[in-house]
Amino acid sequence: MIDLFVIKVGGNVIDNPALLDEFLGNFAAIKGKKILIHGGGKIATRLGDKLGIESKYVNGRRITDGATIDLVTMVYGGLVNKQLVAKLQANRCNAIGMTGADANIIPAAKRPVKEIDYGFVGDITTEDIQATQLKALLEAGLTPVFAPLTHDGHGQMLNTNADTIASSLATALSKFYTVRLIYCFEKKGVLHSPDDENSVITLIDRMIYEELKADNVLTDGILPKLENAFAAIESGVAEVLIGHADDVQSNTTDTVAGTLIR
Amino acid sequence: MIDLFVIKVGGNVIDNPALLDEFLGNFAAIKGKKILIHGGGKIATRLGDKLGIESKYVNGRRITDGATIDLVTMVYGGLVNKQLVAKLQANRCNAIGMTGADANIIPAAKRPVKEIDYGFVGDITTEDIQATQLKALLEAGLTPVFAPLTHDGHGQMLNTNADTIASSLATALSKFYTVRLIYCFEKKGVLHSPDDENSVITLIDRMIYEELKADNVLTDGILPKLENAFAAIESGVAEVLIGHADDVQSNTTDTVAGTLIR
Repeated sequence: MIDLFVIKVGGNVIDNPALLDEFLGNFAAIKGKKILIHGGGKIATRLGDKLGIESKYVNGRRITDGATIDLVTMVYGGLVNKQLVAKLQANRCNAIGMTGADANIIPAAKRPVKEIDYGFVGDITTEDIQATQLKALLEAGLTPVFAPLTHDGHGQMLNTNADTIASSLATALSKFYTVRLIYCFEKKGVLHSPDDENSVITLIDRMIYEELKADNVLTDGILPKLENAFAAIESGVAEVLIGHADDVQSNTTDTVAGTLIR
Repeated sequence: MIDLFVIKVGGNVIDNPALLDEFLGNFAAIKGKKILIHGGGKIATRLGDKLGIESKYVNGRRITDGATIDLVTMVYGGLVNKQLVAKLQANRCNAIGMTGADANIIPAAKRPVKEIDYGFVGDITTEDIQATQLKALLEAGLTPVFAPLTHDGHGQMLNTNADTIASSLATALSKFYTVRLIYCFEKKGVLHSPDDENSVITLIDRMIYEELKADNVLTDGILPKLENAFAAIESGVAEVLIGHADDVQSNTTDTVAGTLIR
C-alpha cells in the first residue's frame, strides 16, 4: 500500500499560469503524505536576460557561474517556490517551501571539473540525504515543496536537476515509506504510438520493457526516463509513474491514467 | 530561565558581508533554541534599479506594488534567506529558511487602503500565528530563519516589517517558552550619551524608562523601539534586549553587553 507520493512537476507547467493553478488544486487534493519537487521553468532565463546574465550551455547543459547560482537561488528558491507555497496554502495544503540547504535535507558535492566546468552544480549521494528529518516534517502534517537547489555544507548553494532531486528523495524515503514517484510532464504517459495520446502503455515491468525496446516502440526521449525509473525501483522505490500534470490526482490512485513502472 | 531566543538582525548587517559572516558564526554558537528574523537590506533596491522597478515611498514608507512584491519575494525569500541558511549550515546550525507562508506560520491581512495604498503589505494578528507548528520545528532541533514576508491565505505573498515579525513570533511563542527577544542593530544598546558607545544603559524597566524620558535622555530613534519592547513584554515576552550585532552571543547570557528591558 503506497503511503507516500513524491511528485515532480516540470518547468512547462511552472511557466503556464492556468496549467499551474489547476495542477496545484489537484495536487492539494491528493490524500495522504506527499512531497512536491518543482523544476525551474524559463523565468530565470528571462530575468537573467534583463539583468545581463547570459545563459551558457555546453553540450546542451547549463553552466552555473556565480551570477547564475544567485539568479536561480532567487527565482527557484524565492519567487517560484513561495508562489507555489502560497497557492497550495490557499488550497488548504500545508506546504513548506524548501531547498536542499534547509534543515540540511540534501547535502551535495560541487561537480568536479573535468573536460567541462559546470560551475555551481551539485551532485547528490542518496545516503547523505537527511531522511529522518524530512520524515519528521511529513509526520508533522507538512507537505515539503522543494526547489531544485542543494548546498555544499560550506556555505555555497548549488544548482541540481529537479528529476534527480525527486528520485533521490524517493529513494531515501523508501526506508520509511512505500513510495510512488510520479513524474508529471506534458504527455499522458509512455505511448505505444508517439502521436496517439490514447495509446498509453498502462504498465511496464522489466520484461515488458525489454520487449518494447526490442520492438523499437520506445522513443529516444523516453528511454532515459525509463532507465532512471528502473534505477529508482532497484534502489527501493515501490513504483514510478510517468504521466500528464493534469492527471496527477488519478495517478495517485489504483486506476492510473499514466504509465506505471514497477 | 530563558529557553528561547528570538533574534532580529537588521539590513545593515545583511548588507555587510564581513559583519554578516561574523554575526552568523556567533549566532550559530548560541546554545539552546533560537529563531532568526532577517531584514531585507538594500539588495532588493539595487536589483530593482537594474530591472527598472522603481522604489516608491510615501511619507517615508515603502509602497509594495505587484512588481515589488515579486522582487522582495525573490531577494528576501530566495537569495538572502538561502544564503543565510547555507552559511548557518556551514557553522553547524541546522537552519530552515522560511517565510510566513511556509507551514502557514504567519497568516496576514493585506493592509486596508485608506489615505495611502501601501500595496502588498501584510499586517499580522498575533493570535493567528501557528505557534504550535513553529514549536514542532524547534523541538525537532531546527533553527527557523524568517524572511520578512507573510501571505494572505489566498495565494498572495505580502511584505511585512521584520521588527514586527520578530515581536509577533516572540509573543506567540511565549505561551510555550520563556522568551528573550533580541534586536541587533549598529549600536551597543540604549545609550546615556548618544555619542558615547560606552554609556550603555544595562537595564531598563518601566520605572527607569519613565525617568529617562523625563530627563530627556532618550533620542527620537530609540523611543519607538522601547515602546515596542514594553508592548512585547506586556504581551508575554519575558525580556527584550537591544544591542549590537557583534554582541549577539553575550546578549544571550546573563551578563549582557546591550540594554535589557523587562
